[in-house]
Amino acid sequence: MTPSPIALSPIGTVHSCFTDKFGVPRQPGIIAEARGHIELIPPYNRREAVNELESFSHLWVIFHFNRSDRDEWKPTVRPPRLGGNKRVGVFASRSNFRPNPMGLSVVRLEEVEEKEGRILIHISGLDLLDRTPVLDIKPYIPYVDAIPGATGGFAPESPAPRLCVTFSSQSEETLAKLCPKRYPNAQQLIEKVVAQDPRPAYYNQEKRDKPFGFCLWDLNIRCLVQNGIATVVEVSHGQ
Amino acid sequence: MTPSPIALSPIGTVHSCFTDKFGVPRQPGIIAEARGHIELIPPYNRREAVNELESFSHLWVIFHFNRSDRDEWKPTVRPPRLGGNKRVGVFASRSNFRPNPMGLSVVRLEEVEEKEGRILIHISGLDLLDRTPVLDIKPYIPYVDAIPGATGGFAPESPAPRLCVTFSSQSEETLAKLCPKRYPNAQQLIEKVVAQDPRPAYYNQEKRDKPFGFCLWDLNIRCLVQNGIATVVEVSHGQ
Repeated sequence: MTPSPIALSPIGTVHSCFTDKFGVPRQPGIIAEARGHIELIPPYNRREAVNELESFSHLWVIFHFNRSDRDEWKPTVRPPRLGGNKRVGVFASRSNFRPNPMGLSVVRLEEVEEKEGRILIHISGLDLLDRTPVLDIKPYIPYVDAIPGATGGFAPESPAPRLCVTFSSQSEETLAKLCPKRYPNAQQLIEKVVAQDPRPAYYNQEKRDKPFGFCLWDLNIRCLVQNGIATVVEVSHGQ
Repeated sequence: MTPSPIALSPIGTVHSCFTDKFGVPRQPGIIAEARGHIELIPPYNRREAVNELESFSHLWVIFHFNRSDRDEWKPTVRPPRLGGNKRVGVFASRSNFRPNPMGLSVVRLEEVEEKEGRILIHISGLDLLDRTPVLDIKPYIPYVDAIPGATGGFAPESPAPRLCVTFSSQSEETLAKLCPKRYPNAQQLIEKVVAQDPRPAYYNQEKRDKPFGFCLWDLNIRCLVQNGIATVVEVSHGQ
């Protein structure tokens, strides 16, 4: 007997510095400067619904990979951490291309804010694209979720930075003029995103020395990698 | 703008020793003897879809709380760990009664078995009801998911056993005659389930000394608690 499909309605929306899929860290928790918030959608925007949430340091966010919907599913995927060549089973990966396009990320909870009837859950260390629909929020319960001695698969143990990062004087000047409230820790954030080498796997192989770009907020960032050193060549406004 | 609802189809079904909601541990990982498997549903029952899964020690299971569907949602819930009196926000709890009835459990991966075209993912430490529809399976990635120093909320740190457990001679005789392949570690499993005090919160308050029962597989188990000691009075077949 095949169980019936279920319909889920988003309960919130992500507001994130990552406005573009390039640049999004490949896992949460890697870049502390990556901040954003989840705004609860009516009728879920009730203060009581998040009572006691602030007694937890971290949250699980279950979300819809809404820019990864495909008509067909494939039983295997090529994780970028394996260089984009090796295939593994879709259920042995966190790929966004999966039978049910749902993601799971743990983020640090910074603050719950009630502002003009809106409920904003401020989070950091996120790997979530701007405007991602949120399906559920659950507390991270350390004694259940943090498993001592768990061992983990084919991906390298820790996501060490891969590239050294420098900034051109043009990009440093532009960054210095940015409003720090609207673009908090912009230079540090850019440095950490670039250090992770956000180039897609095919890019590393075919266009290793070509410039590449990505967006944070409404900023366009252009970089060039040569001999393992990435230079942030240009930062400009407008998408 | 309200994001659109999404429709998800289960990719697997849980087969578990817990055939009844009473007796299910309140969190996963507490009872190692609690075993079961997930069977992938067609068209997802492909060996390739679980390739490399066995290189992980633990899995995330995202599932449908299919016996908890309600027409309305409530912004607060009363967690059993708080004695059933205090209310907390639904998003600060792992309650099954939530806007989108989805659960998240981490379980130990024992083995992936291919058997007559069926794909069976054997798991332990589970807190999943028999026949639960599974929406997604993801690997547990220790460096991302096991957060050192995370702090956690209102629930007690660790789920220490609450009751001492003894068995009547009738129940021990019945257990000794059970087929160990069909009912693996039955006595240990019953002991650990009862030690967690599976009585609902209202039961502790109103009917403290009345017998209570629950099911494991097709066994009915009846217990009596007196002075903090639980006696397994009877074990019988048939539901």
